[in-house]
Amino acid sequence: MMNTPLTLVSLIERAEKYFPKKEVVSRTSSGVHRFPYKEIGKRTRSLSSALESLGVKKGDRVGTFAWNHHRHLEAYFAVPAMGAVLHMLNIRLSAEHLSYIINHAEDKVLLIDSDLLPLVEKIKDQLSTVEAFIVMTDEEALPESSLEALYSYEKLLEKADESYEFSHDIKEDDPAGMCYTSGTTGKPKGVVYSHRGLVLHSMALSLADTAAVSESDVCMPVVPMFHANAWGVPYAATWTGATQVLPGPMPTPKILAELIESEKVTTTAGVPTIWLGLLKELEQNSYNLDSLRAVLCGGSAAPKGMIRTFEEKYGIPFIHAYGMTETTPLVIISRLKSYQMELPYEDKLEIRSKQGIVVQGIDIKVINENGEVKPDGKEMGELLVRGPWIADSYYNDDRSSEAFHDGWLHTGDVVTIDEEGFVKIVDRTKDLIKSGGEWISSVDLENALMAHESVFEAAVISVPDPKWQERPVACVVMKDAYKDTVSKEDLLDFLAPQFAKWWLPDDVLFMDDIPKTSVGKFLKSALREKVREQYTPQ
Amino acid sequence: MMNTPLTLVSLIERAEKYFPKKEVVSRTSSGVHRFPYKEIGKRTRSLSSALESLGVKKGDRVGTFAWNHHRHLEAYFAVPAMGAVLHMLNIRLSAEHLSYIINHAEDKVLLIDSDLLPLVEKIKDQLSTVEAFIVMTDEEALPESSLEALYSYEKLLEKADESYEFSHDIKEDDPAGMCYTSGTTGKPKGVVYSHRGLVLHSMALSLADTAAVSESDVCMPVVPMFHANAWGVPYAATWTGATQVLPGPMPTPKILAELIESEKVTTTAGVPTIWLGLLKELEQNSYNLDSLRAVLCGGSAAPKGMIRTFEEKYGIPFIHAYGMTETTPLVIISRLKSYQMELPYEDKLEIRSKQGIVVQGIDIKVINENGEVKPDGKEMGELLVRGPWIADSYYNDDRSSEAFHDGWLHTGDVVTIDEEGFVKIVDRTKDLIKSGGEWISSVDLENALMAHESVFEAAVISVPDPKWQERPVACVVMKDAYKDTVSKEDLLDFLAPQFAKWWLPDDVLFMDDIPKTSVGKFLKSALREKVREQYTPQ
Repeated sequence: MMNTPLTLVSLIERAEKYFPKKEVVSRTSSGVHRFPYKEIGKRTRSLSSALESLGVKKGDRVGTFAWNHHRHLEAYFAVPAMGAVLHMLNIRLSAEHLSYIINHAEDKVLLIDSDLLPLVEKIKDQLSTVEAFIVMTDEEALPESSLEALYSYEKLLEKADESYEFSHDIKEDDPAGMCYTSGTTGKPKGVVYSHRGLVLHSMALSLADTAAVSESDVCMPVVPMFHANAWGVPYAATWTGATQVLPGPMPTPKILAELIESEKVTTTAGVPTIWLGLLKELEQNSYNLDSLRAVLCGGSAAPKGMIRTFEEKYGIPFIHAYGMTETTPLVIISRLKSYQMELPYEDKLEIRSKQGIVVQGIDIKVINENGEVKPDGKEMGELLVRGPWIADSYYNDDRSSEAFHDGWLHTGDVVTIDEEGFVKIVDRTKDLIKSGGEWISSVDLENALMAHESVFEAAVISVPDPKWQERPVACVVMKDAYKDTVSKEDLLDFLAPQFAKWWLPDDVLFMDDIPKTSVGKFLKSALREKVREQYTPQ
Repeated sequence: MMNTPLTLVSLIERAEKYFPKKEVVSRTSSGVHRFPYKEIGKRTRSLSSALESLGVKKGDRVGTFAWNHHRHLEAYFAVPAMGAVLHMLNIRLSAEHLSYIINHAEDKVLLIDSDLLPLVEKIKDQLSTVEAFIVMTDEEALPESSLEALYSYEKLLEKADESYEFSHDIKEDDPAGMCYTSGTTGKPKGVVYSHRGLVLHSMALSLADTAAVSESDVCMPVVPMFHANAWGVPYAATWTGATQVLPGPMPTPKILAELIESEKVTTTAGVPTIWLGLLKELEQNSYNLDSLRAVLCGGSAAPKGMIRTFEEKYGIPFIHAYGMTETTPLVIISRLKSYQMELPYEDKLEIRSKQGIVVQGIDIKVINENGEVKPDGKEMGELLVRGPWIADSYYNDDRSSEAFHDGWLHTGDVVTIDEEGFVKIVDRTKDLIKSGGEWISSVDLENALMAHESVFEAAVISVPDPKWQERPVACVVMKDAYKDTVSKEDLLDFLAPQFAKWWLPDDVLFMDDIPKTSVGKFLKSALREKVREQYTPQ
């Protein structure tokens, strides 16, 4: 067989050549703009050319600090297609972490959204490698800034070569992108994505049995493009020639609902908190969302009640998936098997509230505390992952061996696998609660609580206990309409029939909000600290 | 990213682990048998183990000489998953070519269907490398044979290890399979398929925008498993956990229609002659074929009239595709773009009667007689193909450079590409007719003739002409019901409004049949020879 490398160049070239009229729809602060792929292709080539004129060479890192929009998409291709490495910077990191990762990756150029410029200005004196700052805007809109070597994106593109030839000198294992995990403890850890990994992942996302990304789709990634390749949606959508809708800066639930309605979005992807917000909006205002064929949900487990509401009340098909920054990210997706389609709705919902089955191309296994492989079954264990789009280390980081050893990524996620192969995330290894020598899943308790009509969010954490070692305590945010109408006892009574008695939380603490990570997951380490400081055992 | 190799081992292991209850339905001379993947997995492992005990080692070639059935499927995985190479032997080759390819590939073991055993016995004295013959049957049914070292498949499996561990020592570029082209001239040429190529091809076949092979499918490959990996269907179907229906020895149109109806087949694949035969059967008997979501057609161009009849008369969606033995085979597939779906049916049919758009992962280009790249357009040129599942040479064959040079496979097919990227096969380079310095497409004339209600098959070839260099002559097989009711003039009148006058054939010759290659394509070299001997210019 020919030794043709799998590179991202072929993805953008296919969109230019075969889908020149299909559009990328981009929301900005000044409205909704439309760029056909023919234009996106020229602009992408111009960006590569402009970066080259700024001195970017093969292997150099180029950072992006931006929302989801067409210029970010252009960077997604322009940087790797010239042989350089796209470093997505998470805009929600602390100043300290942000300067750390820019220096650690040795970013040479940064592409920055205007409204995010102040965050970069604040850390400019800490940056030791950046030679140029490009503001993703017109020349006229270029803000005053204390940054030196400041360029406007559009001015650079104007002067650049729109027929720039992408690199034909890329090997498939060459780095194409990188992203740092927004770890809850310690400094962020870098993950490097190869061309091969991203191309195979794009194929995986377009399979009939996964997200089935297709030319006929209108894809709207709500998951940020500054995080884990926006789950690979921009790459797969471009390759297939799908229409893309990029929701721009600060997308509110109202904005998302309006875009789905007006652009006839067919597939969208994001974390549960996004969909909780959308449900709230749908309760208040009415939209026609009939075009949606799939809402992809990952990042953390979606409560069963949420899936039910989407499907039963609004007729919107909901697909659970699982992955992490280290896995590009798609690893597991919840699609019923053909013979499961005939089950009663409740049984199907039960299965579909699990994360799903491992996708083609990836291997998983589950090990117990002693590192032994578990037979698939109901017993909990840590999930291990292996495959061609799974990282094999953290970038220049001596913490790599904590997660990567024996040829597997140790995810830190505790799971069960049922007899049909459906994986269910039970907890993070560090969030499991050990009471009297037995494990309690904080996630199971949270999902049960979030199924109560009054509960908006719930996190369950452990507190130390002199007798049982650890005991669960629930932290609950009520929906506005239910505030002060439901008591701790009401919620415990609601849980009682669903769990063994010793699983029930010792206490329920009502809160205004639950601390979250930069990507919207519960920040349980901070929550534990806060609660443990104040908490008096019952 | 991890350096995980893409190998066929993961495909069969996925079916065993995640779809143990899904079935492979296999028609044999003794009826229809059902084997769940759990059983197929054990039998596959047993076959690897049995071959190992017969001395098969990594890299050795194992030939199969068999129809489409579950034992052939087991060999499709058992041989490559132990690191050996599966050599599909075309059962329709001449004795001379058959012994040539077995010796050329140096097959160590042959797996043979009982009913095909006489063909092998006939050439046994020419075989210089085969050490064992395995008849794919029970011990009791083992026929008398002059072959030595003769084993029954089931007896070997009985004694073998059903928990045999597949090889973990396979590199993705290692050979997994091979197949010889059934060339119309000269000795057959061998194509070697790598694990990587076959895995990527399986992904390509399962994409939402191609054949979309899925767990919910019931796939029936009519294309023989002794030819070009049965277009990759058995690999993709196993990987996705689809149900497979393998139609066994000598599948007649009646058998195919019955299987589609009884097994609720959703996708099937084969050459135009198969579908012509099925249409004949559907005219005579009535079947419920509502389960079909796609009839894949490749190998040669399907006449527009046939596509229309399938869709308009029977409501069966028809998908045109293009590939060749050298390309694993999928290269091009005809799926309308979303905005083409709104065109009138006739316009859609016009587009869909072309071969289609190149699939994700493959590059194509078109060159003229001087080897220059043509701008895409209506001008004819030779199709060149490149990609990770395209062969880079013929196996140990000094004719390789004729087809493989400059990093491209030169297909020998003459095509046009329209502004939407749809490729249309106009002819084989050697079948084009050059009249008065201009090209005439034999395929265009054939398709137009086959759209006439009276015509069953039509082939157009060139005859020498003193004035024009070459002129077209049509060879036509009439449908039984129309025999002797339609004249040469009727057919020429039918063609006249559709073509320039100088394209019209000089003559129409009525025949009982048209000579075909071993895979059912018109054997135009033989036809030309036959006609030129007898033909007197008008």
